[in-house]
Amino acid sequence: MEKAELIKLLKKCGAIQFGKFVLTSGAVSDYYIDIKKAITTPEILKEIINKMKEFTQGYDLIAGMELGAVPLITALSIETGIPFVIIRKEKREHGTNKQIEGQEIKEKRVLLIEDVTTSGGSVLKSIKLIRENKGLVDEVITVVDRESGAEEKLIDLNVSLIPLLSVSDILKK
Amino acid sequence: MEKAELIKLLKKCGAIQFGKFVLTSGAVSDYYIDIKKAITTPEILKEIINKMKEFTQGYDLIAGMELGAVPLITALSIETGIPFVIIRKEKREHGTNKQIEGQEIKEKRVLLIEDVTTSGGSVLKSIKLIRENKGLVDEVITVVDRESGAEEKLIDLNVSLIPLLSVSDILKK
Repeated sequence: MEKAELIKLLKKCGAIQFGKFVLTSGAVSDYYIDIKKAITTPEILKEIINKMKEFTQGYDLIAGMELGAVPLITALSIETGIPFVIIRKEKREHGTNKQIEGQEIKEKRVLLIEDVTTSGGSVLKSIKLIRENKGLVDEVITVVDRESGAEEKLIDLNVSLIPLLSVSDILKK
Repeated sequence: MEKAELIKLLKKCGAIQFGKFVLTSGAVSDYYIDIKKAITTPEILKEIINKMKEFTQGYDLIAGMELGAVPLITALSIETGIPFVIIRKEKREHGTNKQIEGQEIKEKRVLLIEDVTTSGGSVLKSIKLIRENKGLVDEVITVVDRESGAEEKLIDLNVSLIPLLSVSDILKK
């Protein structure tokens, strides 16, 4: 699927919105990518996964941080047969008391997935957690990169950022 | 798939654990259903979804509360083609400021999914939110019901609880 096709799908389902929005990072933006609108529509989710699966070869595990990445990693896992882990934003106080839920990641090659990357804060946190638990991570796939610093931060950690779309792809359409 | 078969799969992947655990409800239990271990394993997730899809006829939307239900609703959506909504535990301060993420639920028939039901607190909260937003809900499917009050609470709301497994099914094996 071409970038233009994906942009068309995102606009069609209302996942790209214009207005005034305060982002999780605190910044104010005059557009908002409501990626959840896209990934909760099964036809669009399938298209995204179809594109992502090209990058999964050689990985033992798929990983993503709650909440936005969870539908993506679930769908990608079903499509590829690769198990996944869910990374919690905070350590849990009850139950199994884990921050990485699902599978054992020690010495596993982990492909990290994000829905939207902005300044890269969440991705950095995920990489740190994966590495603290001795998982190996060298690539992050994101549906939309807002081109606000994530890529540069990842370079410092020897991790490549692979965006299916960049915000400049969207704005120039 | 028979109940016995599902129990076998859950034990095999380590999703049923024995020990001392403090549950989200605050209660202490000598066993723990680490359902996330099961649902992050694509073969087992597929088996669960295969069973759940028998109950999806006539519904416009699938819904589930973060975090545990999200892989289930995603996989069920892909399997059936029915879109889904993610219910946040708390209202979000940033971005679109919604507690129900994804699709418009007004006047839609909504099938609610849970991973594990205990006293029914989360399910009740979900039903309340769906109804406040004018969605219609009359059934909840849960992978494991711990038989600790959820079913009774739902009856009061005219909602049926359909567990794929009850904890008594698991303990008698």
